[in-house]
Amino acid sequence: MAIRSIGIISKPKRDRLEEVVPPLIDWLAKRNIKALIDHETADTLGSASHAAAVIDRSQLAPKCDLLLVLGGDGTLLAAARHVQNCNIPIFAVNLGSLGFLTAITISELYPSLELVLEGKHQVECRKMLQIDVMRAGAVAATYHALNDAVLNKAAIARILDFQLFIDGQFVNFLKADGLIVSTPTGSTAYSLAAGGPIVYPTVDAFVLTPICPHTLTNRPLVVPDRSRIEIVLKSESESVFLTVDGQVGLGFHSEDRVICSLSPYRTSLVHPPHKEFFGVLRSKLKWGER
Amino acid sequence: MAIRSIGIISKPKRDRLEEVVPPLIDWLAKRNIKALIDHETADTLGSASHAAAVIDRSQLAPKCDLLLVLGGDGTLLAAARHVQNCNIPIFAVNLGSLGFLTAITISELYPSLELVLEGKHQVECRKMLQIDVMRAGAVAATYHALNDAVLNKAAIARILDFQLFIDGQFVNFLKADGLIVSTPTGSTAYSLAAGGPIVYPTVDAFVLTPICPHTLTNRPLVVPDRSRIEIVLKSESESVFLTVDGQVGLGFHSEDRVICSLSPYRTSLVHPPHKEFFGVLRSKLKWGER
Amino acid sequence: MAIRSIGIISKPKRDRLEEVVPPLIDWLAKRNIKALIDHETADTLGSASHAAAVIDRSQLAPKCDLLLVLGGDGTLLAAARHVQNCNIPIFAVNLGSLGFLTAITISELYPSLELVLEGKHQVECRKMLQIDVMRAGAVAATYHALNDAVLNKAAIARILDFQLFIDGQFVNFLKADGLIVSTPTGSTAYSLAAGGPIVYPTVDAFVLTPICPHTLTNRPLVVPDRSRIEIVLKSESESVFLTVDGQVGLGFHSEDRVICSLSPYRTSLVHPPHKEFFGVLRSKLKWGER
Amino acid sequence: MAIRSIGIISKPKRDRLEEVVPPLIDWLAKRNIKALIDHETADTLGSASHAAAVIDRSQLAPKCDLLLVLGGDGTLLAAARHVQNCNIPIFAVNLGSLGFLTAITISELYPSLELVLEGKHQVECRKMLQIDVMRAGAVAATYHALNDAVLNKAAIARILDFQLFIDGQFVNFLKADGLIVSTPTGSTAYSLAAGGPIVYPTVDAFVLTPICPHTLTNRPLVVPDRSRIEIVLKSESESVFLTVDGQVGLGFHSEDRVICSLSPYRTSLVHPPHKEFFGVLRSKLKWGER
Repeated sequence: MAIRSIGIISKPKRDRLEEVVPPLIDWLAKRNIKALIDHETADTLGSASHAAAVIDRSQLAPKCDLLLVLGGDGTLLAAARHVQNCNIPIFAVNLGSLGFLTAITISELYPSLELVLEGKHQVECRKMLQIDVMRAGAVAATYHALNDAVLNKAAIARILDFQLFIDGQFVNFLKADGLIVSTPTGSTAYSLAAGGPIVYPTVDAFVLTPICPHTLTNRPLVVPDRSRIEIVLKSESESVFLTVDGQVGLGFHSEDRVICSLSPYRTSLVHPPHKEFFGVLRSKLKWGER
Repeated sequence: MAIRSIGIISKPKRDRLEEVVPPLIDWLAKRNIKALIDHETADTLGSASHAAAVIDRSQLAPKCDLLLVLGGDGTLLAAARHVQNCNIPIFAVNLGSLGFLTAITISELYPSLELVLEGKHQVECRKMLQIDVMRAGAVAATYHALNDAVLNKAAIARILDFQLFIDGQFVNFLKADGLIVSTPTGSTAYSLAAGGPIVYPTVDAFVLTPICPHTLTNRPLVVPDRSRIEIVLKSESESVFLTVDGQVGLGFHSEDRVICSLSPYRTSLVHPPHKEFFGVLRSKLKWGER
Repeated sequence: MAIRSIGIISKPKRDRLEEVVPPLIDWLAKRNIKALIDHETADTLGSASHAAAVIDRSQLAPKCDLLLVLGGDGTLLAAARHVQNCNIPIFAVNLGSLGFLTAITISELYPSLELVLEGKHQVECRKMLQIDVMRAGAVAATYHALNDAVLNKAAIARILDFQLFIDGQFVNFLKADGLIVSTPTGSTAYSLAAGGPIVYPTVDAFVLTPICPHTLTNRPLVVPDRSRIEIVLKSESESVFLTVDGQVGLGFHSEDRVICSLSPYRTSLVHPPHKEFFGVLRSKLKWGER
Repeated sequence: MAIRSIGIISKPKRDRLEEVVPPLIDWLAKRNIKALIDHETADTLGSASHAAAVIDRSQLAPKCDLLLVLGGDGTLLAAARHVQNCNIPIFAVNLGSLGFLTAITISELYPSLELVLEGKHQVECRKMLQIDVMRAGAVAATYHALNDAVLNKAAIARILDFQLFIDGQFVNFLKADGLIVSTPTGSTAYSLAAGGPIVYPTVDAFVLTPICPHTLTNRPLVVPDRSRIEIVLKSESESVFLTVDGQVGLGFHSEDRVICSLSPYRTSLVHPPHKEFFGVLRSKLKWGER
């Protein structure tokens, strides 16, 4: 399918944005491709963005054939939230250092984009995590995550008590600073810093990684992604927060429940040409190649 | 299907064997079930075993409807090697402390066995790992593991150098004491001691856990069990060994390759009634239940 | 020196307090020992405490020969703050489960106290950590910790950036959820949960344990306790907090500095008879004794 | 004290040795400094070494004012064994990649050596570990280590059982692949790969790091270096080995005891100018400097 319109979402206030976006809009225009930008990008660019249509970020996805994200992994996660129920692929270009999800550098932008326009690219379909927050027996909120859902304590709060169930089976009482439920995609993000394993993107599993568990035998747990993961907060403290993909915050109360399961949504990522998963790992984790 | 004959494999020299096996043979005889024992058990029991047929361990499986293993996880792994190409279920009873795979205690033997004879039990089908050792371009040996394959160095050897590939993609050069390739079943065995995650038995994945990696960013890696894992030994040292399920040893040379993939075999385990996976974890890992 | 007055500090609202404290006051009175209690304990006991003098917790220490703490490790840490510049020994009895610092159980209270009154006990002198918070070139606050000082981020904040110096030498830029500076005494508390080593109480060292470090090669660091540890917050976020012994909170700003060094204060702990350090470790960490 | 003779110990078979050593001998001769080389170096150099006196490595130290080591950390450890009861400083130059102990690169050889000859250098005195092996009540062997003593199992052996005592106090029964007793100097070597902390060289402590412990709550333990560490092997297996600084091997039997304590020997290292401990850590562990 030919690409006729490209939405651009960028990390606002990035210094390099002014150098990068206006020439990109011109480059696309020469190829008869319409550029649509969000208000944040438009504000950053000022008058330089006049050639592009400005649309609210939440309305952008249905009007585009491809979403071009300029920024780091955080920008990509924010963008993914806005296209999660569409099916358009995301092409991510890192304006700074290499990211796990944003492995194309700015110098590779045009050659890579050329390949995409010619259809010479692959799209990876990444599974997502659905998070339902239950309060007093009702669904209080629902989220979809590409990376992870994190329940953790405020800086000054005491250790948290969780009760964990998988498919209705009691797993354990967990005393910890927090708990991460991660997709394979998110396994190289916060879960890795907390001691979790690296999970290849196509493994059909979620990872539950405790944060600073009080019981030293609590280890990361890998479960099938068809599991229903239920986390019940038993602490009385009110200083507990849920964050989804590092971006959404929700205060949490005792006896609130988080149900994690496979989301019906998927995120489609344009696979960066010549950037295999393990190659990105080697660069990011500084694995010597001998 | 009615059970008419039960093979018994036990850990030889176990003190309690003489107390346990002869009454068990009688108990089975009263129910018209034939007991078959291996030579090792017969030798341990002496004349006390006269009521049972004695058969070579390797011939036992085709003649039985159920295999009863008396011993710890090691005994079960040894028994599993002898039934790997049959399809008979293994019912494991631990004569000592609780094992991850042998969660039925001796006091639960008869009530549990009663349930099994009445067909009131579930059988779990555990996936296995196939290990092909390639030397000078040819397959030098093939093994099947329920738990894991381990490549590690001799006590006095220097650190090893491995080259790792997944589905033909280069992963990294690994400098470590060794490398464990584990099934989900084996994730609670050696891999856990080396820092690997706990993987629920039905996750379709293998875990690659480095042993004391020199590069601190080398972490356990979870890959789909449909992957072809290729490990090439680059060290010149000849003090490298392959062990499969902790029981088989093979010397290893530079440029030898180990190919790990999903085995066509499965191990059928009688699921111990009232012993869920997480309950066994809680007991074994001493997770407080509050 | 004969003990003539004992101060009692307890965890308020503990159910068992009413059962324990009044008989204890009587028991002491019979031995001509004066009991002094803090307002919190008096409030919990109500009229049952009439036999004891009630004194403000901050005034308690100079009037006592011994401080008896009833509660867990948290209660002991709180009490220690009130006696840090005195020199009176603390005798800690755990009303609940065993603590690392409160290894005497309620059933051992009277036999142990008898030994103490007879002078048949040892007092351990534990070193403390001094924490000076520098803001805009001036000391904004000073604390003394028996266990640890923790700098960490709020639940919803982004990862923190620290700059670390030891004795003026630059160590590294640390990207992490937080950083723990621990005494040997605190090494079995939060630092252990974050992956730190167990440090024997008499080692002359502090431990710096990063919390979920982004760079996987950042490991716990043990430095001499004569070191001057300087931590500079480089994050712009204002959601950073300092906690001292889990109990004091202070908001933190970019370019604030924390200087950690050996405190001139010591905490004197009555060594529980028959409770060696490693015995407590074996109980708390459930190390099998075979 | 003026330096009049320099002993040279090198890693035999190093390609670069022929380029480096003969010009170095000439350079020293011009400054009236006598070069002494060991037989291994002489054999590698052949006729190119004629200007230097050739002496047995074990006799080298008493005849020199400085020992120059050309090679990696392994070469330095081997050299240190031969000078452990002398008091001459070691100046180590790395012919390959940077080592923790050999932080001077070949391009820095002459400028650094110039500083040393002018006396403009510091010598660091590193504490060592004494290892006494007790068999049947008698001392069977005594070693001195700059880095570590390691007890570990052969590749195909089962898990080991150790009994550990500190200053006569029972610590625990350890089930593990092995156990490392490390000096602070050795904390960045094998102990780090096994999960141990980084210990600043002047901390008066030893680190006990279990290798792949079966009990997940067994953590690295830091004890004062005035401790008497006693390890008793309880396994019946004969496939257990002691290695000291990675270089000496001794077979081990059940009930053999290893006593570790502070050695009366020290190793004197010429501190590489402009190479602080943390700078070397940053390079070796690839800590980003931002």
